[in-house]
Amino acid sequence: MLAAESLSMIVLGIDPGLANTGYGVVASDRSPAGAGRLLALDGGVIQTRAGIAQERRLADIHTAIDALLVEHEPDAVALEELYFGQNVRTAFAVGQARGVAMLAAGQRGVQCTSYTPQKVKGAVCGNGRADKDQVARMVQALLGLADLPRPDHAADALAVAICHVNCAPLSRALAPASRLAGATA
Amino acid sequence: MLAAESLSMIVLGIDPGLANTGYGVVASDRSPAGAGRLLALDGGVIQTRAGIAQERRLADIHTAIDALLVEHEPDAVALEELYFGQNVRTAFAVGQARGVAMLAAGQRGVQCTSYTPQKVKGAVCGNGRADKDQVARMVQALLGLADLPRPDHAADALAVAICHVNCAPLSRALAPASRLAGATA
Repeated sequence: MLAAESLSMIVLGIDPGLANTGYGVVASDRSPAGAGRLLALDGGVIQTRAGIAQERRLADIHTAIDALLVEHEPDAVALEELYFGQNVRTAFAVGQARGVAMLAAGQRGVQCTSYTPQKVKGAVCGNGRADKDQVARMVQALLGLADLPRPDHAADALAVAICHVNCAPLSRALAPASRLAGATA
Repeated sequence: MLAAESLSMIVLGIDPGLANTGYGVVASDRSPAGAGRLLALDGGVIQTRAGIAQERRLADIHTAIDALLVEHEPDAVALEELYFGQNVRTAFAVGQARGVAMLAAGQRGVQCTSYTPQKVKGAVCGNGRADKDQVARMVQALLGLADLPRPDHAADALAVAICHVNCAPLSRALAPASRLAGATA
């Protein structure tokens, strides 16, 4: 199956939120010389102000993500799956930001895959219950970064991008139909 | 405050969902001759197929809502607020579709307001616990429709549009700041 993969892959990871949407762009070099080395091409946080209307904040998120899609031309977008937090309102606001991120990918014809937080932690740290510091340190090590990735939203976005790079070849081999239907990994 | 209102108002009501997004366009004629009469300009359901990727389904919803915004040039978009149903996955999918609908409005500079189902039922039926049939019959009566509005998603979208027509002048007078911040009515 790996023979059919391209020699490099660029993934835009997104950690969606209404106020802070983390993003991270990771490239894997699968050529014989690259030996699967991972590189961070970009990372940061899209911030929107609480004082403006929610629909305008969503439009700002969409504009910023679309600009990242145009700049980096990723092969895939990877997002953290939603989970139930303590605050219902926050969970729904995250869902709305998430829809906007997925929409931006869909409009550019880029496939989205969602991963549960446990899956991301397992892929990055080998432990689905790793804490935020462990994830940030492993992201730093895997991407060869001089410093710990900051803020947390950017680190989480880089982590989900790494997760996709590591999981995509296997999931493509095992379940192409369910991935096309937007299934959660 | 009412003196500052325009003589007519067009509201696009949306009942968001990944598979079925209901929409309804309601105009109120506030001129002396119109005496506040309500008219249904459009209504229906945007359907997306389960077999295609979620990001493409969201893109289809966005395209359809944007076309409605261009066609009807509404003064406002009104949506039902999310509530916790039994199925977590469904609730999040609705949240994502909702974000896309709000985004479409935000991109066209049209203000969004959200109403709880109780508020919509109260505005349309005078009873926040009215059932679906009561809502559909009151929507039919208020809009002077020959038949009951169908399907349910279209009737719900018309109901939230009517709710906004009835509530907007009062909420504008009482709480302009919170509405600008995207607050839930």
